[in-house]
Amino acid sequence: MRSAPIERVWFPQRGTLLEIEEGVQLQPRSDERGLIPCVTQDATTLEVRMVAVMNAEALVLTLTTRQAHYWSRSRQKLWGKGEQRRLVQHVEHVLVHDDQDCMLLRVRIEGGASCHVGYRSCFFREVTRLGPRTDFALNSLETRKVFEPSQVYQTAQDGTPMVKP
Amino acid sequence: MRSAPIERVWFPQRGTLLEIEEGVQLQPRSDERGLIPCVTQDATTLEVRMVAVMNAEALVLTLTTRQAHYWSRSRQKLWGKGEQRRLVQHVEHVLVHDDQDCMLLRVRIEGGASCHVGYRSCFFREVTRLGPRTDFALNSLETRKVFEPSQVYQTAQDGTPMVKP
Repeated sequence: MRSAPIERVWFPQRGTLLEIEEGVQLQPRSDERGLIPCVTQDATTLEVRMVAVMNAEALVLTLTTRQAHYWSRSRQKLWGKGEQRRLVQHVEHVLVHDDQDCMLLRVRIEGGASCHVGYRSCFFREVTRLGPRTDFALNSLETRKVFEPSQVYQTAQDGTPMVKP
Repeated sequence: MRSAPIERVWFPQRGTLLEIEEGVQLQPRSDERGLIPCVTQDATTLEVRMVAVMNAEALVLTLTTRQAHYWSRSRQKLWGKGEQRRLVQHVEHVLVHDDQDCMLLRVRIEGGASCHVGYRSCFFREVTRLGPRTDFALNSLETRKVFEPSQVYQTAQDGTPMVKP
């Protein structure tokens, strides 16, 4: 079920371009992996916190439980954001991209952090240009971590952060 | 050049996980298609306007010209957003995701519309749940189009909107 295309299992068959782009029916489209990208922003500040992917099950669970769920590509499993660390994302609004191949969540986040590195947002660094060509540096926009990852995670052999048991 | 992975052509070799996630060097990673997703939000309101993809050339052009460029998958060509319709996106900030596989632009948009359907944002519809199961409807969040697509676009045989000559 997890790898089935989103539109075949849970949602109506996709209609015409007009129905998809301007209609009133949710007809999401997953990619060749059965996944749909999802942007998650803070419902109050509108700061973009993270970008992840959902499979059909994650999307349906997000829509029905109103807690954000994603699909972890590194761990190949369903991932209820924060389920083990109390950084739960409570979903206030779910929006869909014009061609219904991308979702947008507006969430309220318990604990304040969205990023496994420990920062509030996964987008905690800004690109600045140093030279006339492609010489770029990253400047951190957040001065302090919300939590210290080494106290929360252990690292799997492939480098994937895993919540400590 | 357009299909080459981003990190091989323009940017430094990716380092350790620590360098990628917490370092100060831009080391973006493209997917198997040589593309990196990009979220674009209004620099003032932080409203998310669209999600698209960039190839290496689009990313470099965005960083160096400070006007947003993307890669059109349907037309398989570089796409300087709004170049033909004066809906240019002026880039004020470029942020990068923790694992550097996604970009975030904060832009100022001439003309006000980001969506080819004519609305301010591509995310102009919200998902609402109608029944106890997966019965969902879409409600429009924008009551008026910024422009009328039929006056701007013609439709290619494959349904792709193309700017009228």
